[in-house]
Amino acid sequence: MKGTVGELGEFGLIRELTSRLTSNPAVRLGPGDDAAVVAAPDRRVVATVDALIEGRHFRRDWSTAYDVGRKAAAQNLADIAAMGAVPTAVLLALVVPADLPVTWPVELMDGIRDECQVAGAAVAGGDVVRGDTIMVSITALGDLRNREPVTRSGARPGDIIAVTGWLGWSAAGFAVLSRGFRSPRAFVEAHRRPEPPYHAGPAAADLGATAMTDVSDGLVADLGHIATASGVRIDLKSADIDVPVQMADIGQAVGVDPLHWVLTGGEDHAIVAAFPPDAKLPARWRIIGEVLKPAGTPQVTVDGAPWDKAGGWDHFGGQD
Amino acid sequence: MKGTVGELGEFGLIRELTSRLTSNPAVRLGPGDDAAVVAAPDRRVVATVDALIEGRHFRRDWSTAYDVGRKAAAQNLADIAAMGAVPTAVLLALVVPADLPVTWPVELMDGIRDECQVAGAAVAGGDVVRGDTIMVSITALGDLRNREPVTRSGARPGDIIAVTGWLGWSAAGFAVLSRGFRSPRAFVEAHRRPEPPYHAGPAAADLGATAMTDVSDGLVADLGHIATASGVRIDLKSADIDVPVQMADIGQAVGVDPLHWVLTGGEDHAIVAAFPPDAKLPARWRIIGEVLKPAGTPQVTVDGAPWDKAGGWDHFGGQD
Repeated sequence: MKGTVGELGEFGLIRELTSRLTSNPAVRLGPGDDAAVVAAPDRRVVATVDALIEGRHFRRDWSTAYDVGRKAAAQNLADIAAMGAVPTAVLLALVVPADLPVTWPVELMDGIRDECQVAGAAVAGGDVVRGDTIMVSITALGDLRNREPVTRSGARPGDIIAVTGWLGWSAAGFAVLSRGFRSPRAFVEAHRRPEPPYHAGPAAADLGATAMTDVSDGLVADLGHIATASGVRIDLKSADIDVPVQMADIGQAVGVDPLHWVLTGGEDHAIVAAFPPDAKLPARWRIIGEVLKPAGTPQVTVDGAPWDKAGGWDHFGGQD
Repeated sequence: MKGTVGELGEFGLIRELTSRLTSNPAVRLGPGDDAAVVAAPDRRVVATVDALIEGRHFRRDWSTAYDVGRKAAAQNLADIAAMGAVPTAVLLALVVPADLPVTWPVELMDGIRDECQVAGAAVAGGDVVRGDTIMVSITALGDLRNREPVTRSGARPGDIIAVTGWLGWSAAGFAVLSRGFRSPRAFVEAHRRPEPPYHAGPAAADLGATAMTDVSDGLVADLGHIATASGVRIDLKSADIDVPVQMADIGQAVGVDPLHWVLTGGEDHAIVAAFPPDAKLPARWRIIGEVLKPAGTPQVTVDGAPWDKAGGWDHFGGQD
């Protein structure tokens, strides 16, 4: 495929993008009309949106278009799963410069399509417009299948905190890439393409989760949202939080406590939830803490003390 | 309200924006969790997304933030209506520069909220990120209430073409603004803030519409999508297409055939549909043409001939 999106034109690009999509029974009417029609058998639809900007959320020299597509879809599909719902469809709003090679949005769409397939969803529609900076905004939809949505506000003192999926891998990969390295490959891959445990969201709802979220901003920050919404304190036990040996090696090489990546690294989209203390959790869930009555302001502590280096990712703040 | 969005920070801005929203029974769980939950009583959800970029789709010196919000919401809510569905909720992805005054996104949100209210919908969630250029992407959701979706592909030879809503008003207003004028006010207002006839979409479905779309790119261009999807020719009768006297006056003043605005001007979001010839249409629908067997390529003609000056809005094409 040759040329730029400007040469291909809006309608040509849309044709090219939609021709690559696969069908899914949940998408009753796909791209090409005023709107899509998506199955919502539960009579409620779960919906979320996120926007990614080039230079801020991804770099073209660090990630392929395909990986950006996988990641952009993953972060939204994980939000659906973290409500206890099953992803059904995504819609894409894409801003592309006219001089961008056509291969870029095409590979992006392939990545979105493939990540949707992993989660059991499909692309239902979208919009493509021209702009100076690449922007990828994805709306994900999901179905609760008669489950009640698991919000952030239901954690109760006495609950346990458990997590499944990867923690800190993307942050360690980012640290490696920032220093100009391309290995260890497992961490670089984890930064480029997260693997959220989509099935774990509805499974946690069935296991009685009282509050749940996916780890997009970092474990301490995202559990902080649960602590605030539920009016509780959450205390994590560092001894129960696994730091992979290879991650410890990277930490030593770059002079960072790898526990910091595990506690504050976002973008892996692990699923973390509060459960009643008697919940029977499958082996892939690790119990990492407990829910306590708040001592003053609701907050997250690690071994009883605030995690000083912790903090959420503020998109307008100092980090960039 | 003082300061910039950079000074307020991401979470402060989100708090400010969500505090202004109103509730709606369709929004079961609003902003503040991993995802929203929206009622979908029909067991299907209609979904669409559009992105607007500053400088390309709006100008801050021509439109207030409030008007941009009204317009951005309107164009998506109109797409929902044009499927025969009732709008239920929207999600907003917003990109804002750090130096933007806080009042801009706040007034934008007020506009989105108020336009949603006109259409019977509400804001269910969103995402705010920092970027160099303002980008407003809105996802709209709707419910079919047991109606079948009215697509673009069902028009049959013998059907009539009818339209309701405004045509060419936004284009005439744009012509006025482009020449540095701020009046006639009715047309400038129409450019800044369209008034789609939301109720007409579901009503047209009930009246037996065989194909439907909203006029976002221009009457001839949007009917062209119906002609192509349905494999038919659509012939419009210029004598049946009303050109308001005031629009004719502007046309004369700026040297443009006002019929051109009516036939090719987009953004008013009128609703145009094909109906069986015996459909009993209420007075606000004007019959403006008929559906014929295609003579060669499916197309739209005016009084039997192609409308030479017509053409869709190609976002990567020459127009800007």
